[in-house]
Amino acid sequence: MSEQADLAYAGLSAAARGRGAAGAAKPRGAKAAPGRKKGRQSRPPKPRERATASDLARKQRDISVSEFFAKNRHLLGFDNPAKALLTTVKEGVDNALDACEEAGIAPDVRVEILQKSESRFRVAIQDNGPGIVKSQVPKIFGRLLYGSKFHRLRQSRGQQGIGISAAGMFGLLTTGKPVKIVTRTGRGKPAQCFELVIDTRSNEPKVRRDEIVKWDPPHGTRVEIELEGSYRGGQHSVDAYIRQIALANPHAQIDYLPPAPPSKAPQNKAGKAAAQKAPAPQAPELRRFPRVTKELPPETAEISPHPYGVELGVLMQMFRDTGSRNLRGCLQADFSRVSGRLADEICERAGVRSNRKPAEISRAEAERIHQAIQQTRIMSPPTDCIAPIGEALLEKALRKEVSADFYATLTRRPAVYRGNPFLIEVGLAYGGALSAEEPISVYRFANRVPLQYQQGACAITKAVSGTDWKSYQMQQPRGALPVGPMVLMLHIASVWVPFTSESKEAIAHYPEIVKEMRLGLQECGRRVAIHIRRRRREADEAKKRAYIEQYIPQVAVGLQEILGFANKERDSVVAKLTDVLKRSRKL
Amino acid sequence: MSEQADLAYAGLSAAARGRGAAGAAKPRGAKAAPGRKKGRQSRPPKPRERATASDLARKQRDISVSEFFAKNRHLLGFDNPAKALLTTVKEGVDNALDACEEAGIAPDVRVEILQKSESRFRVAIQDNGPGIVKSQVPKIFGRLLYGSKFHRLRQSRGQQGIGISAAGMFGLLTTGKPVKIVTRTGRGKPAQCFELVIDTRSNEPKVRRDEIVKWDPPHGTRVEIELEGSYRGGQHSVDAYIRQIALANPHAQIDYLPPAPPSKAPQNKAGKAAAQKAPAPQAPELRRFPRVTKELPPETAEISPHPYGVELGVLMQMFRDTGSRNLRGCLQADFSRVSGRLADEICERAGVRSNRKPAEISRAEAERIHQAIQQTRIMSPPTDCIAPIGEALLEKALRKEVSADFYATLTRRPAVYRGNPFLIEVGLAYGGALSAEEPISVYRFANRVPLQYQQGACAITKAVSGTDWKSYQMQQPRGALPVGPMVLMLHIASVWVPFTSESKEAIAHYPEIVKEMRLGLQECGRRVAIHIRRRRREADEAKKRAYIEQYIPQVAVGLQEILGFANKERDSVVAKLTDVLKRSRKL
Repeated sequence: MSEQADLAYAGLSAAARGRGAAGAAKPRGAKAAPGRKKGRQSRPPKPRERATASDLARKQRDISVSEFFAKNRHLLGFDNPAKALLTTVKEGVDNALDACEEAGIAPDVRVEILQKSESRFRVAIQDNGPGIVKSQVPKIFGRLLYGSKFHRLRQSRGQQGIGISAAGMFGLLTTGKPVKIVTRTGRGKPAQCFELVIDTRSNEPKVRRDEIVKWDPPHGTRVEIELEGSYRGGQHSVDAYIRQIALANPHAQIDYLPPAPPSKAPQNKAGKAAAQKAPAPQAPELRRFPRVTKELPPETAEISPHPYGVELGVLMQMFRDTGSRNLRGCLQADFSRVSGRLADEICERAGVRSNRKPAEISRAEAERIHQAIQQTRIMSPPTDCIAPIGEALLEKALRKEVSADFYATLTRRPAVYRGNPFLIEVGLAYGGALSAEEPISVYRFANRVPLQYQQGACAITKAVSGTDWKSYQMQQPRGALPVGPMVLMLHIASVWVPFTSESKEAIAHYPEIVKEMRLGLQECGRRVAIHIRRRRREADEAKKRAYIEQYIPQVAVGLQEILGFANKERDSVVAKLTDVLKRSRKL
Repeated sequence: MSEQADLAYAGLSAAARGRGAAGAAKPRGAKAAPGRKKGRQSRPPKPRERATASDLARKQRDISVSEFFAKNRHLLGFDNPAKALLTTVKEGVDNALDACEEAGIAPDVRVEILQKSESRFRVAIQDNGPGIVKSQVPKIFGRLLYGSKFHRLRQSRGQQGIGISAAGMFGLLTTGKPVKIVTRTGRGKPAQCFELVIDTRSNEPKVRRDEIVKWDPPHGTRVEIELEGSYRGGQHSVDAYIRQIALANPHAQIDYLPPAPPSKAPQNKAGKAAAQKAPAPQAPELRRFPRVTKELPPETAEISPHPYGVELGVLMQMFRDTGSRNLRGCLQADFSRVSGRLADEICERAGVRSNRKPAEISRAEAERIHQAIQQTRIMSPPTDCIAPIGEALLEKALRKEVSADFYATLTRRPAVYRGNPFLIEVGLAYGGALSAEEPISVYRFANRVPLQYQQGACAITKAVSGTDWKSYQMQQPRGALPVGPMVLMLHIASVWVPFTSESKEAIAHYPEIVKEMRLGLQECGRRVAIHIRRRRREADEAKKRAYIEQYIPQVAVGLQEILGFANKERDSVVAKLTDVLKRSRKL
């Protein structure tokens, strides 16, 4: 670092960060001298000073995961105010639905958005879930990478233990306000109220308030976060999200109170303001999305890792951690689909004795076992760990959303990527009021959560564009979405959905996943092609028939003249010919 | 969780994870009973058991950042074997170049890839940088989120303190082999050799070997990582990366030893095998990319945050952390471009006394100060913290890479997003051997690092597709890349490049950034349009001229006949007319 740079900037910034360790970064002779700032550009460059290894070493430092995500908040879906509002709602609702389902409760979720000023909102999400034990509240809401869903293979909306605390952190960053939580774990238990902030430096919660309050619901949780945001319409809006989450979760009841713009002048209570010229802000109306079915989705099981999906490093770790006393037991107990016989087969193929203590297996032996696993035929992982929406409910949802002529839905059988079971569902609506001139709309879902951003980066988009829609009677520019009156809905359900970013907006391009999607799309494509062809044939028939019908009377008149028919006979000929036409060309 | 699920899976998986805390997740009566697995599907569903809040609480757990990224490794660019190899090389080279430049050393970087088996590679990256102090080596290479570049605003390739340790972690996961580091901080100092692995559970390094070795270079660092990978050609290949990194870093010398496929049969020493039918594996050849310039890029300064880019929450944190005794001093010392006068102005506008102790400022006061900052005119941040490649070197690089008719390069003036200065450079090559039928190629760079993946998700692509190329004489399908014989090169340099993911493959869509890119593209577009129009005009002229030239002799013959010219006069008429033609239609 040159002397000049030191003088003008480095000293300042060391002070700016003001951390203990930062003092070390302060270069020799540096002094905050703001007056010199401007002079810098005109001076001739000095020869560089060489930074030594120990200069560089003094700057090395830990980065807390909260600091990391605070600075990279676009990774979590907080890139802009409109998206920040959506992400906050989304993380809250994901958690609410997960909690209810894990506890076997039919979810009643309430989302309220209160607009406090032009760019400031207070979001509240309330559920009737099992509530949260007091000691867990601070960590769940005030710490990134904390949760129950990461260390297991089980289908759920949340996966990472980041979402809701990140929303709270974003609220804190933009408004300085803490997250507020009210929770109650059951009738007769007190309702607990917390206000807490995340300390980004240490990724630890700081509790500002912790007391018992009066709260009516027998059990459940309510989270309130205040943040800088923006409320917009359109495909990326909170409204669109709420509609789509209701579609994909027909067993949930969702109440949604959208924001009303803050009124600038106090309004008359009787609503007289409405008579004035300026459109008065309307009081927001609660929108209820009632449940379509009372049945909860089939309960999903947690599964053990499948041997094919386990990498060498993970395998070695599992040997160190296992509770089993020998290799055979470990293979059998810690993995899906490994029987005692299969465990023996693997050990033998690897040339490692099956009674070896797992913790004592060397790297080389582990590598042989890893290879032996790949060479052994092992059943696919169990698939009852995945709960599809189902073809019937999917079609019901589509019919509710889109008015079309033709619907097709498909739930594929589960498949596996990297040892993780997953399942693809496809819904298709065609014709009707849909526009024939535009590229089709694609609704994307992962574990029943709508994905609204990053369509271009998503494996679903890749699968749709990569399908040859021309062979299904649709137009399609090369490598793009087809053009026509169609809506597609794709759903991936998995014990672990591979997203392209922490904000969970797009599915990563695993070949197995793209392939399954394509197969599902092709099947639905074939069905819609039959429909389109039939429609075309029908239109052709109708045209021909109209043409023939037009000439039947002429034919009859001709016959009457040639054969001297009476009018009655002529009419009978018309009737007969019409009948023949009808029978020969069935519509 | 239902009893059945417990029996079949949960017990197993608790054992599978085998962690201390996992015992709690073991449900009542659960027992590993593999025999029962298969029976499950046929049994009638039992009524659900309700999980209580305390059941759920027992499953809550910390997630270490290494575990998080090990499971989500596609976020770091390790989604598939080919990309894993590229990412490993990239992270190593980024660090090598950064280290050399920080120490003011002209970089000599050597990349070696040794293929050990079909899918296993050993990557070595060696630099002539300042070396690494012994005590820092384990943390730098064996811990995620550790480094010197995160907590500062300064242009560098690395930003996050994740890259190289993640590459090491991926190597460990796939091959079980530790990372090897040899480093020396100067002549007369010993060369230190480490072998270490990352403990993903705790995100801590574990040192396996730590000793002094014989190593010739006077200073520098060599990292070796063994990993499962795949070596491929094409636009995403390591070869393409090496070529592009050399282009964007003309001050660096890069030596690259590509892998040779492992020979299956031992080869004759004299190379007689080459005479046989099967093509013999060629010994890899070292490819050298010599430096084009001896001058290091202009040194960049570290800057303090600009007040406009600081959010309320960060502002409050800075007040708590500052070394200044009063508000005025804090505003002046900890931020870019705030003079004493300006600090007073801000305090007055906010209604907070300028001699207040920063740590005692309340949330409400901080909010007023935050608003006051936005209402105060503050100079843009200093821009000498950014080092562009420069128009001349950019053109040189383009000419080396692409053979075209026309080149245009442009370095825009720095601009600001979220308080961070950044700068856009655009290079354009048109015509020549480039294909006129294909969409154009776009080379993307961020802080001199080529971006090879996720083109669709990148702000650069958005800016290029969003520019109206039709007005610059090019074809362009709606909303897509233009079609024509053109190559574009865009470079963003910034103290903090906002990437869409940790793998640093695409730039996030900040409106200020997209706008600057578009302005640069438009300027280059105007220039190429002039070129294209001139070319067309020239072609038209040539056509017309050829046409007129063809008739000049006829005209002369006609005149000769009418006016009775001698042959000499006729020839003179031809010469004169040709001359007039030449002068009136300059080519």
